[in-house]
Amino acid sequence: MTTRVIILNGGSSSGKSGIVRCLQAVLPESWLAFGVDSFVDAMPAKLQASDAGLDIGADGTVSVGEEFRALEAAWTDGIAAMARAGAGIVVDDVFLGGAASQQRWQKALDGVEVLWVGVRCDSSVAEGREVARGDRVRGMAAAQADAVHEGVHYDLEVDTTHTESLVCAQTIAARVG
Amino acid sequence: MTTRVIILNGGSSSGKSGIVRCLQAVLPESWLAFGVDSFVDAMPAKLQASDAGLDIGADGTVSVGEEFRALEAAWTDGIAAMARAGAGIVVDDVFLGGAASQQRWQKALDGVEVLWVGVRCDSSVAEGREVARGDRVRGMAAAQADAVHEGVHYDLEVDTTHTESLVCAQTIAARVG
Amino acid sequence: MTTRVIILNGGSSSGKSGIVRCLQAVLPESWLAFGVDSFVDAMPAKLQASDAGLDIGADGTVSVGEEFRALEAAWTDGIAAMARAGAGIVVDDVFLGGAASQQRWQKALDGVEVLWVGVRCDSSVAEGREVARGDRVRGMAAAQADAVHEGVHYDLEVDTTHTESLVCAQTIAARVG
Amino acid sequence: MTTRVIILNGGSSSGKSGIVRCLQAVLPESWLAFGVDSFVDAMPAKLQASDAGLDIGADGTVSVGEEFRALEAAWTDGIAAMARAGAGIVVDDVFLGGAASQQRWQKALDGVEVLWVGVRCDSSVAEGREVARGDRVRGMAAAQADAVHEGVHYDLEVDTTHTESLVCAQTIAARVG
Repeated sequence: MTTRVIILNGGSSSGKSGIVRCLQAVLPESWLAFGVDSFVDAMPAKLQASDAGLDIGADGTVSVGEEFRALEAAWTDGIAAMARAGAGIVVDDVFLGGAASQQRWQKALDGVEVLWVGVRCDSSVAEGREVARGDRVRGMAAAQADAVHEGVHYDLEVDTTHTESLVCAQTIAARVG
Repeated sequence: MTTRVIILNGGSSSGKSGIVRCLQAVLPESWLAFGVDSFVDAMPAKLQASDAGLDIGADGTVSVGEEFRALEAAWTDGIAAMARAGAGIVVDDVFLGGAASQQRWQKALDGVEVLWVGVRCDSSVAEGREVARGDRVRGMAAAQADAVHEGVHYDLEVDTTHTESLVCAQTIAARVG
Repeated sequence: MTTRVIILNGGSSSGKSGIVRCLQAVLPESWLAFGVDSFVDAMPAKLQASDAGLDIGADGTVSVGEEFRALEAAWTDGIAAMARAGAGIVVDDVFLGGAASQQRWQKALDGVEVLWVGVRCDSSVAEGREVARGDRVRGMAAAQADAVHEGVHYDLEVDTTHTESLVCAQTIAARVG
Repeated sequence: MTTRVIILNGGSSSGKSGIVRCLQAVLPESWLAFGVDSFVDAMPAKLQASDAGLDIGADGTVSVGEEFRALEAAWTDGIAAMARAGAGIVVDDVFLGGAASQQRWQKALDGVEVLWVGVRCDSSVAEGREVARGDRVRGMAAAQADAVHEGVHYDLEVDTTHTESLVCAQTIAARVG
């Protein structure tokens, strides 16, 4: 069966975006890339810094409300429809709910061949990269580094602590059926 | 019947993005926003400046190839699925193919209530705004100002030449059923 | 005497950046552009959301601390030195201190020919453009629309309420000696 | 004598920007950051893709013209004036002219205490990071990796091939007098 969707899950500053761009470069066909950042960009500004939407605390803790969840469910269904329509899709997400987040994707992607990839990075290294990026609230990397992987099942895992994005992408691409 | 999708069509620098953000602010519920710019961001970098993908000439003419069209068709199906799943969606697009572009959306959105909005702007004014943005190839605004509306049918049209984005958005929002 | 520096002063969302890009396009020589946004980008992230640096309240009020003022003074001296070294410079600023802000620039630019330009925009229109931009805290436009012009002397004023950026830029460029 | 300016020189995608943001975080005082990217942003759009300004070839080779050099000289003088006015400044640059580029900075910064830092990265690793960034013309990293260091004298060198930005920044900060 042919892989139609690659889902990368990892904490903030674990290196997902770089792997996604490398995957788009090394995969022989043209894959579309979507992720939690592009989803948040699609939301109304009024849902940011909001209880109903997305709230990022000064310490980097992230909480999402009911409206966020409802829009996210529709967005997830849309991503699944793109895959069923024949496009290859790379998704990068942050499973704030761990196993429950994975189950939401599994339900939406029923019948679609998915490659599940865990993106790990040592918490202290991710924290340093958060400083180097300069555009994230400090504390997110550390808060999410392990929590997002709890109870999640992967086809493979990559670790960006000592491995470059391009090498991780080549490892993943080799597993695409 | 309830409007689930608002599609704004207009040339480059006609003011679509500003209207979209105002619509997201004034509509009582939370609508997601997608458009040709976010679609291009989702494509592999290798499809930009490519015959198979998207090619923007030095004079601002835009041509798209077969791979672009195939991915766009899947993306369009995905947007339709998000609407069917219950989310309100605002789309801003540039109908390079005029009536044919509208038909592609109509086919994907079969059974979904859509509000079709034409966004007009005098060519000379759009050209000036293209200079003021500084991030677009000069010539796109003039090349697209009229061509994208050929043969397209709208529920309403707005003109940003002398009307602010927020006022246009309020006019559109008043027509949402 | 030859104009070496053009300083545009106006509130948030009054349209300064668009005028700056148009000025760079219409002026016969190549002018460098700097402004309060590029200055803030040059500051350490730790000075943002800080009493010592820059603090933007949820209602759009802006306050700056001692470290901000000290770095700004050095930056202002640097801009003046670029002009003395022969480059034409366009600066866009927000005179939070009104006349006192102008005096700081006058002191730094002693002996340099400056064209002082006020950029006006009706408060309600600027508020609407703030919504259309989507990247600014709401309330800044209204809070600054009039306050930044108090006690400031200009060589000319432009008003973006009903006039496009490019037309404003052409008016300004015609006054460059 | 007190270090007032830190100049980082390295090829495209060698990791300079991340080190700069980490330096701003770890240095006890507040330092301003400027660099070749912010300088190019300050130039008129018409000087990009221009013989007189900045031209980036499809293979990643970069050439700069006379107007670029003239504006750069004024900008360099301005950075020096900011340092003389008391601000600490971190500069990241790409010495396309090798030793000649360093001499231009030395002349402008006469009498100012400068810490010269070479930022190295193995060419193949920098090429991979160029793919992961997705916003640079491919080939720049490889073309510049060694060339920019030819004949340049440093106070210290860091290598991002196997060392994180934050660790490089801590090494540099320890040498600031």
